[in-house]
Amino acid sequence: MTRLELFQQIIAKKSFLCIGLDSDISKIPPHLLGYEDPVFEFNRQIIAATNDLCVCYKPNLAFYESQGWQGWRTLEKTMALIPSGVFTIADAKRGDIGNTSTQYAKAFFNQMNFDAVTVAPYMGEDSVKPFLEFEGKWVILLALTSNQGSHDFQFTTQEGGGPLYEKVINKAKTWGSPENLMFVTGATHPEKFKEIREITPEHFLLVPGIGAQGGELEKVCEFGLIDQVGLLVNSSRGIIFASRGEDFAEKARAAALEIQAQMAQVLAKYFR
Amino acid sequence: MTRLELFQQIIAKKSFLCIGLDSDISKIPPHLLGYEDPVFEFNRQIIAATNDLCVCYKPNLAFYESQGWQGWRTLEKTMALIPSGVFTIADAKRGDIGNTSTQYAKAFFNQMNFDAVTVAPYMGEDSVKPFLEFEGKWVILLALTSNQGSHDFQFTTQEGGGPLYEKVINKAKTWGSPENLMFVTGATHPEKFKEIREITPEHFLLVPGIGAQGGELEKVCEFGLIDQVGLLVNSSRGIIFASRGEDFAEKARAAALEIQAQMAQVLAKYFR
Repeated sequence: MTRLELFQQIIAKKSFLCIGLDSDISKIPPHLLGYEDPVFEFNRQIIAATNDLCVCYKPNLAFYESQGWQGWRTLEKTMALIPSGVFTIADAKRGDIGNTSTQYAKAFFNQMNFDAVTVAPYMGEDSVKPFLEFEGKWVILLALTSNQGSHDFQFTTQEGGGPLYEKVINKAKTWGSPENLMFVTGATHPEKFKEIREITPEHFLLVPGIGAQGGELEKVCEFGLIDQVGLLVNSSRGIIFASRGEDFAEKARAAALEIQAQMAQVLAKYFR
Repeated sequence: MTRLELFQQIIAKKSFLCIGLDSDISKIPPHLLGYEDPVFEFNRQIIAATNDLCVCYKPNLAFYESQGWQGWRTLEKTMALIPSGVFTIADAKRGDIGNTSTQYAKAFFNQMNFDAVTVAPYMGEDSVKPFLEFEGKWVILLALTSNQGSHDFQFTTQEGGGPLYEKVINKAKTWGSPENLMFVTGATHPEKFKEIREITPEHFLLVPGIGAQGGELEKVCEFGLIDQVGLLVNSSRGIIFASRGEDFAEKARAAALEIQAQMAQVLAKYFR
């Protein structure tokens, strides 16, 4: 999907919501456990109930891998039923030497037809570039993550000034373009969005940390919004686990609708 | 496996060789493609031909994931046939927020019974610690990798001095111990082993980059060896793809034997 197509989806749906499919088998409604593939049934109902409210789904690979090869198959089946036109992110945080990154790219872009994959920057240019060589596909590079551990290395001040995450952004901008590279910037650091936008005036940002992790939409939008919106704001647990009852899909829709309604207001204000 | 048990295996086999199972389906001998699961048959023969010469196998996840769920099943079948007593590393370079890292740990430690998993440090403490909570299991944290891209961020000088990879090592040492934490340090940076050993006098190092990537065993041993050896030196392509003919397993054995013989000499000198 191109940047323009993503923007058009956002405008059409009045939403820049990404729903994280962190479909933990120990947290899905118990009545689904009788199905042959409970996580698939859970995802099927969540997707059916929410796909008009979001522009993106982001399966978190860990929750599929922890179920072994059957989990990986569940993910492939899930990908097959996400409607075309919805942007898909493999939240996999991969990154390895060049020939290995190419194989990961094949796994997510060719085998499963994801639009994007999250990539960790520590191994540098030759670990990231192979993902950027796939036409119409995206790298979403970790820059400033939403977790407590982001303070361990990402804020490391370099000799000459500036935190490491800024160096990551500045270097990566030379490897990709706003047409194939986004950055992960956590909603738990809203005070940093102004500075981040100074160095990424055109790139989409994937923003986790809204909801369960405590980030706020309003603060993210204040400095994060750009021409063509430039934000995908993710919520996972707050939506998909809104209820553990038989009404889980309905409650997930209600939770997604609440965020989408806020987004529609923001978009009405800035994008008429 | 404990540190002591690993050391005992090294002494018994006169080897600290790790064989990387980067079993690329496009590079395995063509005559195997008729098998129902060609990569599994390749691994089976490689393991049968080499398991007395190495102390460790390290499947590279990317080459399995690129084959979809069937590839993941191939990996599970491969794990089931590695003899007990051989240390196993999931070369997966994972790392995510805490609840997600726990799921990855379950995938590799519980589902597949790996002894160790490679972890990327960028997301910090709460992304690494969940892996350290599994009894008898190991984290192998990326510190100084073997690839060209290691120069992009790992050598970033911090305000106050010292490269980022040293900060990674120093912080991580407070999260785990020499009994459950190793570091990846590439053989392509032999001049750094002396300094790295000053801050990691007790931790095992996993050393990729011998062979195809150009690193040399002798230089690695000069400063890398410690009490209880403390090194796992990896070779992947140089061993497993030594031949594409029907003699591939035999040739892999010969390539492994060549490295193992060098290791036996080193061990005879220092560990009598």
